[in-house]
Amino acid sequence: MEKIPYKIYLTEDEMPKAWYNIRSAMKNKPAPLLNPGTHEPMKAEELAPVFCEELIKQELDNDTEYFPIPQEVYDFYKMYRPSPLVRAYCLEKALGTPAKIYYKFEGNNTSGSHKLNSAIAQAYYAKMQGLKGVTTETGAGQWGTALSMACSYLGLDCKVFMVKVSYEQKPFRREVMRTYGADVTPSPSMTTEIGKKILAEHPGTTGSLGCAISEAVEVAVSTPGYRYVLGSVLNQVLLHQSIIGLETQAALNKYGIKPDMVIGCAGGGSNLGGLIAPFMRDKINGDLDCRIIAVEPASCPSFTRGKYAYDFCDTGMVCPLAKMYTLGSGFIPAPNHAGGLRYHGMSSILSQLYDDGLMEAVAVPQTEVFKAAEQFARVEGILPAPESSHAIKVAIDEAMKCKETGEEKTIVFGLTGTGYFDLVAYQKFHDGEMDDYIPTDEDLAKSISALPPVD
Amino acid sequence: MEKIPYKIYLTEDEMPKAWYNIRSAMKNKPAPLLNPGTHEPMKAEELAPVFCEELIKQELDNDTEYFPIPQEVYDFYKMYRPSPLVRAYCLEKALGTPAKIYYKFEGNNTSGSHKLNSAIAQAYYAKMQGLKGVTTETGAGQWGTALSMACSYLGLDCKVFMVKVSYEQKPFRREVMRTYGADVTPSPSMTTEIGKKILAEHPGTTGSLGCAISEAVEVAVSTPGYRYVLGSVLNQVLLHQSIIGLETQAALNKYGIKPDMVIGCAGGGSNLGGLIAPFMRDKINGDLDCRIIAVEPASCPSFTRGKYAYDFCDTGMVCPLAKMYTLGSGFIPAPNHAGGLRYHGMSSILSQLYDDGLMEAVAVPQTEVFKAAEQFARVEGILPAPESSHAIKVAIDEAMKCKETGEEKTIVFGLTGTGYFDLVAYQKFHDGEMDDYIPTDEDLAKSISALPPVD
Repeated sequence: MEKIPYKIYLTEDEMPKAWYNIRSAMKNKPAPLLNPGTHEPMKAEELAPVFCEELIKQELDNDTEYFPIPQEVYDFYKMYRPSPLVRAYCLEKALGTPAKIYYKFEGNNTSGSHKLNSAIAQAYYAKMQGLKGVTTETGAGQWGTALSMACSYLGLDCKVFMVKVSYEQKPFRREVMRTYGADVTPSPSMTTEIGKKILAEHPGTTGSLGCAISEAVEVAVSTPGYRYVLGSVLNQVLLHQSIIGLETQAALNKYGIKPDMVIGCAGGGSNLGGLIAPFMRDKINGDLDCRIIAVEPASCPSFTRGKYAYDFCDTGMVCPLAKMYTLGSGFIPAPNHAGGLRYHGMSSILSQLYDDGLMEAVAVPQTEVFKAAEQFARVEGILPAPESSHAIKVAIDEAMKCKETGEEKTIVFGLTGTGYFDLVAYQKFHDGEMDDYIPTDEDLAKSISALPPVD
Repeated sequence: MEKIPYKIYLTEDEMPKAWYNIRSAMKNKPAPLLNPGTHEPMKAEELAPVFCEELIKQELDNDTEYFPIPQEVYDFYKMYRPSPLVRAYCLEKALGTPAKIYYKFEGNNTSGSHKLNSAIAQAYYAKMQGLKGVTTETGAGQWGTALSMACSYLGLDCKVFMVKVSYEQKPFRREVMRTYGADVTPSPSMTTEIGKKILAEHPGTTGSLGCAISEAVEVAVSTPGYRYVLGSVLNQVLLHQSIIGLETQAALNKYGIKPDMVIGCAGGGSNLGGLIAPFMRDKINGDLDCRIIAVEPASCPSFTRGKYAYDFCDTGMVCPLAKMYTLGSGFIPAPNHAGGLRYHGMSSILSQLYDDGLMEAVAVPQTEVFKAAEQFARVEGILPAPESSHAIKVAIDEAMKCKETGEEKTIVFGLTGTGYFDLVAYQKFHDGEMDDYIPTDEDLAKSISALPPVD
């Protein structure tokens, strides 16, 4: 058989021309967004003050299989796509495992992560609608960086609310956004009503993602010519991110490879939902026998310890309600939690798939994650983001199980981005100053008990 | 004609199997290294206490055309090579130029730059010789990062002397090296005799590259099982970096493209010498009519304002003498100089080619460089290193000349690395706090007057 190269590249011609909508294959569709006042499913016209029109169509469409990628988005993709699927020969050798490990590397662009795939799509539709700009929130900074870059390319304004603790601890992330011309405000801020309210109630708070979302939405709905965009959780985001999975499958198909498991890190679900899309379709259709594994931080374990219920998407409770595995919108991961994957809830699509038993989930503590990250970096050469390293950790664990059993399983995982802006966390890890905070049952019971009463 | 893709990738099979030695094509060979005491050409046995044996052979061999790339180095290369040759369609469009612009992107690995190409080769030969480890110096940190990564992969010790000002201002660079297991010491230090001497003479000095070289060499020659390795200037380094040029030419050949000019940034010459190698050969042989342009910082203008003469390679004057365009070994660029390209001299190979009129050189001020960097980032998506941005600046200038004349010239430049660790400099640029320091004729006359008296 032909030797598998270190990197399997697709040609530009082999790059997918359309995004794949996994909802079209789901027997149980994801639950709809609800109006927080009436608890009725949100209609397009209710969403229109917040989101761009085309994106609302994508958000609400559970049936269309493929959405063509607009030419301008496609051209932008070609600057950094197709991304490589790498055979981790060096890691396999270091582990001494008979498993065959592949990773899809999405860190190969200045935004440093997969977030750019949806950022350029959302910015494009905003521009097509004739808008002046968009607002958003960012936590660890990957999404804000990606959106700034996309907006700069298309000539749109970009207002980013950055969780204050990240704003202060990650000045370089801020500076990259500035290089791309974005306006970055630490959240909570005095520039919004909700920000003022939160600061009055919690003086000195360092912010949270849910709070930054509330501020970004407020500015979007109150500023003519602006809409709000989001980097994860939503159906539309998973749709755009399907490019990751489609390319991965196309690359594997070139060599007739079928994965035994597909592993991705999960915060809001943007990377995981995109990576698994075509594999999940084949699994649903009975064409593929494959484990699909979500990896989440033990400090923010929405799949493994959350409740499947309707919840607020933001702290200010201005957004629609979404049905998801959630820890409660008031949940904030411990301050020692490094990197992203800190959202209290999880994509409705993935929540439904998990509830249907089509996916597994595992929660891992962060010191274990950084151990895996360093091990990976030393042999594979890429310095992984903490988020991505959750998937590395479980891929290594599964490869070691293969070593015990002698099974030559094919493991595919998503390497979503690079860790260049996470070196403070790496430093803590090296200095032995990193620990694992795992929320107690009482902590979770408290935040989960505050879910809104939806039947 | 077939449309040129955004990225021209070579397959693994198309990756060059041997390094190309440009010296073999040179009519006037580069001047030999001289013993600083006798002023006689250095012999292999004199170099042996400092350098690895195989590398000495490569250093002294002006005749062999190709050196096969050892299998283990080749396997390592495959983790991140072949690197893409990108057609800068977006930049061309933004500039409105008829010129066709290509760049060879070498930032696509964790070391973040082309330095890894030589680091893995040098570490490999050290390992083959049965050594325990290597020592080196690093300024901006790209070389130290690359060497740490290579040593980690091969299981070698790595001791890095990092110019103190960089050590303090770039803690994340230091942390990356630490992730790869290197031992990093700020230079000058009290761990070496030369360091103590320099500190006694210049208390409070923030160090220089020449000084860090002296310390690294001292440790190498005084520690059993260690040798010294260097990331630029030397013939062996340019040999390893020829992989850049060979791949670039192979990719262009796929589409029958001949460049009208090849542009690279120049500090010690590692990237430039590698990028231009096969093009220079064709130019020397009369097979290619092509301008070859070195771009250097106006604050450290060795080609454009230096003297072609024998000089010390280091501040401590423990290294052999090299004939090169030099500003004098006592020259230190102004503190406001951002990024690398701060070495006082220039590769002997490139110096000879420049002296023979086969290359041009241009010096550019750093605010212009950062302006070009930002312009490039916003349309091409890659955040470039300050070093690489010198080449971008001149590529843009040349493309704008084509706009005036209407000529559809083909411009190829080297994008040597990414700027993730240079955001302090970007911030200064954004805040209007960056200025251009250009040394006066008096400054240069003074440092150049201290050249050693060699006939």
